Amino acid sequence: MRTHYCNGINENLIGQTVRLCGWAQRRRDHGGVVFIDLRDREGLVQVVADPDQAEAFAAANECRSEFVLSVEGVLRARPAGTENLQMPSGKVELMATHIEILNRSEPVPFPLDEEDIAENLRLKYRYLDLRRPEMLGRLRLRHQVTSYVRRYLDSGGFMDVETPVLTRSTPEGARDYLVPSRTQPGHFFALPQSPQLFKQLLMVAGIDRYYQITKCFRDEDLRADRQPEFTQIDIEASFVDEEAVMGIAEPMIRGLFAEVLGIDLPNPFPRMTYADAMHRFGVDRPDLRNPLELTELSDLMRSVEFKVFREAAERPRGRVACLRVPGGAQLSRAQIDQYTQFAAIYGAKGLAWIKINALDQGAEGLQSPIVKFLAPEVLQEILQRSGAAVGDILFFGADSAKVVNEALGNLRNRVAADLNLLEGEWRPVWVTDFPMFDYDEKDNSWTSTHHPFTAPQSAHLESLAENPGAALARAYDLVLNGNEIGGGSIRIHQEKVQEKVFAALGIGAEEARDKFGFLLDALHYGAPPHGGLAFGLDRLVMLMSGADTIRDVIAFPKTQKAGCLLTEAPGVVADKQLQELGIRLRPGVGADVQNS
Amino acid sequence: MRTHYCNGINENLIGQTVRLCGWAQRRRDHGGVVFIDLRDREGLVQVVADPDQAEAFAAANECRSEFVLSVEGVLRARPAGTENLQMPSGKVELMATHIEILNRSEPVPFPLDEEDIAENLRLKYRYLDLRRPEMLGRLRLRHQVTSYVRRYLDSGGFMDVETPVLTRSTPEGARDYLVPSRTQPGHFFALPQSPQLFKQLLMVAGIDRYYQITKCFRDEDLRADRQPEFTQIDIEASFVDEEAVMGIAEPMIRGLFAEVLGIDLPNPFPRMTYADAMHRFGVDRPDLRNPLELTELSDLMRSVEFKVFREAAERPRGRVACLRVPGGAQLSRAQIDQYTQFAAIYGAKGLAWIKINALDQGAEGLQSPIVKFLAPEVLQEILQRSGAAVGDILFFGADSAKVVNEALGNLRNRVAADLNLLEGEWRPVWVTDFPMFDYDEKDNSWTSTHHPFTAPQSAHLESLAENPGAALARAYDLVLNGNEIGGGSIRIHQEKVQEKVFAALGIGAEEARDKFGFLLDALHYGAPPHGGLAFGLDRLVMLMSGADTIRDVIAFPKTQKAGCLLTEAPGVVADKQLQELGIRLRPGVGADVQNS
Repeated sequence: MRTHYCNGINENLIGQTVRLCGWAQRRRDHGGVVFIDLRDREGLVQVVADPDQAEAFAAANECRSEFVLSVEGVLRARPAGTENLQMPSGKVELMATHIEILNRSEPVPFPLDEEDIAENLRLKYRYLDLRRPEMLGRLRLRHQVTSYVRRYLDSGGFMDVETPVLTRSTPEGARDYLVPSRTQPGHFFALPQSPQLFKQLLMVAGIDRYYQITKCFRDEDLRADRQPEFTQIDIEASFVDEEAVMGIAEPMIRGLFAEVLGIDLPNPFPRMTYADAMHRFGVDRPDLRNPLELTELSDLMRSVEFKVFREAAERPRGRVACLRVPGGAQLSRAQIDQYTQFAAIYGAKGLAWIKINALDQGAEGLQSPIVKFLAPEVLQEILQRSGAAVGDILFFGADSAKVVNEALGNLRNRVAADLNLLEGEWRPVWVTDFPMFDYDEKDNSWTSTHHPFTAPQSAHLESLAENPGAALARAYDLVLNGNEIGGGSIRIHQEKVQEKVFAALGIGAEEARDKFGFLLDALHYGAPPHGGLAFGLDRLVMLMSGADTIRDVIAFPKTQKAGCLLTEAPGVVADKQLQELGIRLRPGVGADVQNS
Repeated sequence: MRTHYCNGINENLIGQTVRLCGWAQRRRDHGGVVFIDLRDREGLVQVVADPDQAEAFAAANECRSEFVLSVEGVLRARPAGTENLQMPSGKVELMATHIEILNRSEPVPFPLDEEDIAENLRLKYRYLDLRRPEMLGRLRLRHQVTSYVRRYLDSGGFMDVETPVLTRSTPEGARDYLVPSRTQPGHFFALPQSPQLFKQLLMVAGIDRYYQITKCFRDEDLRADRQPEFTQIDIEASFVDEEAVMGIAEPMIRGLFAEVLGIDLPNPFPRMTYADAMHRFGVDRPDLRNPLELTELSDLMRSVEFKVFREAAERPRGRVACLRVPGGAQLSRAQIDQYTQFAAIYGAKGLAWIKINALDQGAEGLQSPIVKFLAPEVLQEILQRSGAAVGDILFFGADSAKVVNEALGNLRNRVAADLNLLEGEWRPVWVTDFPMFDYDEKDNSWTSTHHPFTAPQSAHLESLAENPGAALARAYDLVLNGNEIGGGSIRIHQEKVQEKVFAALGIGAEEARDKFGFLLDALHYGAPPHGGLAFGLDRLVMLMSGADTIRDVIAFPKTQKAGCLLTEAPGVVADKQLQELGIRLRPGVGADVQNS
């Protein structure tokens, strides 16, 4: 129906007849002539209808915003002084000879060229929201990302293999979405939280190199910008170690940024151990654009009299550390109070601080509520370790390491954002040597930091049971600007190692068999060494596109309440359907539903 | 861990040291030396361990079938007379210097090199089944197909856009899989039977050219080689007509066969109307490799005395036709009886036949139970129309057109297979001009032949309500060797047309709004003309790979009972999970479950 997209129209085509299809973005009368900005997926072209072409002029007159048009005409140069150099077609205009109104539009519920539209309205009329070039650009970027990733992995000998959506619980441990079975009433499928078990089985099958860009599902409360269904770039390979996996993934991300954004990421990406990341930044996904670092003080504080610090330093899993903010001495009391409240979100009971007014006057040069509790040599050591300079402020955390890390780690991000401290645009970093297990204070038990199929480092294999807290995993995350964009591990391929890990987790043989029996069986029959990783596509595209939420890079996202405002899913179903599935609503649930 | 895949090993590398990883396919002792056929994804290499290399020899001695090995060694030419020219590496062998047993294997539950293994066993140990080169080859072919399709569509400006899996009922009308919502108890998501509505919304959004290779879900009884989850290559474009859509899809399929199978399909594909296909072949997906055709006799039989034929010919939706089988006069009574029983499956009450023993002796030359009921001039006309020759047989169908078409259409395939009549390897054909509506005899109502968003041909727009049976749709199917591999239509983009179609279907305004309100809304706001089609990936790959069932081209398929023998999904879930979802089992359902 068209000879060109709008972005193909420029001064080289002057004098030629072209046919365009698209939407009337704007229509205006000017001097007895009608001007229409015609929009298609690729751009805009100015259409001119004058009364000499009676039919076209009549159609142009009838046209309103978002009408769908087919326009044929001859391209001419715009009159001098009326060019619009902002747009590629801005030097020309299309003198319409035929205009066909292919479809009409009611006035749209929100102006497409405004920026601040309530998200609920955008989601209800998503098909209009996606007409906005910004949103279209994000979907296009997403397509470019998946296209690049597929080409890269295809050329690396990776096979795209589809794994089931109707399956059973996978080991991630979040809440499953369930699907009642009609043919086996009383039984349920689970939607996969990841293809983890299946990709391991594909390695046992000898697929050697697998990938899939696939939907995963978690029925979690949607804080923290998550979606019930999200998309993963899932990769697994056999006969590989950590270096090999990172050697596949890192060039992929570097190539992706180069091709899609024209950005050169560092080569190689820097690496950092988990322990290092926690010590220096308080988080396992440090934003390296942020120059602020924590200073370790736990050892120093074990011998001070100041009880708050000493007791935290003496706890088995305690920590005392400070965050140095260059130039922070200018912060007002009100700002410091805000930061104290902010730290409290993460469990910090207070936020001690020292402003450095002078370095050569001992405690006199330091402004602080806590200086009086600390001996001069301790203060001296704090200043020296932190590298504090005149005009800085130090914020202190003293509590369990978990609280200190979360409070100071997040404060570090908050302060850097407030003070505009971020340096550089894109700072990837591999974080390696994760612990095998996390200690669950509530249950007084150990849980997998990643999942129970992650291989331990060989040095820790024999002592897993006695000292689970010291065991390191063959796991790695790729962090970009403070976001974990991908992560993975070398998996366990030997039954005996798997048994040791289950034992350390307190998972008995029966429970293991019940949950993962088919994977354990597979380990009997020649499972090769293997490992891999997965990237969160939504978050990656969100970062690359500069969007604020992953909802903006998903065509039809769910709300925070896991509903779809466009289709009004989830919906009510007929009782007959539930009967067929052998289920019914619990008493009191959906009473309005049953009456309807 | 490896320097080469096994298929990279050949006589050009003689004298070089290489390292291979894989599985011991076979191990044998011969003259004090151990030979191991080492298998990886790409091929086989013969490894030789002799006692000179004590460590390697010891490992080789320990090795059993399906052990996982890393082998380093030096390639040498096989001794003259021991080459195996069947395999690419057959002129060389690897003299092992190091063999590491990376993992051991118990004896596998079925021999991997046998052909006839019970499918249940294969599905339970799918990771072993997939090790067989035939199965691996099918997954690889599937990957090559999707890879080609993506490259083709990417280069054509199609954008891969993901649509939701957790959504609401789509218009295909099969049974939905439901997912109970936890955040809105009493409400359910449905898994999509296709992305139909979303891809139409993407066209309204101006995406212009969309594709997706995506899972669809139908909770149907799994006769006819179907799967609860299947994969669709889904395509949609704006500002297109039928020619444009076929002009996108046809070169894609032709290019796919050329690249992946090295096969040149005809250019262009032949086309045939639905009416023509039904008349000539009795089916809307004719296998054009089959030279047999039906002969229309309805008009002729309206005036005969033979009641069985006349009454069928006189029925409003009746038909009399015959199938000519060249050389079929040799069929025995037993064979004809079998065909009669076969036709009965499709509702035929009998299968009249005439064997042509001679053409110049009138009824005397014809052997048949029905000749005596037919006048000589009628017999003459039958022979002439069907082109019958001496040695042929004619089979007759006389019933409702539906029964005649199904019985003779299927008999046509059966006979051609039995008599080895298929000609040529690949015979695609577009079937066009489908009816808008099918008549449902049971409900005495009209249903959509495709779905209610299919556009009617403009000539039939005004008479939709009065004469729904005559209305043709802007719909098309691509048929390959008797299989519908794809199909689609131009969609309705104008509200008034949509209303007329709903009216013809007896769908009231309220029902339409309830089911598809968001799509109807979207038609208000400048929906462009659009259309598309979808291919069934599983069936396409099955045909291309020569597999007998789609289960053989799916890595982890479900059984006919919609279960997974490997993971034992669907499974039992804790009552706590059902509580959270606001549902419970009906009384008597899964009693064993609740007691566990």
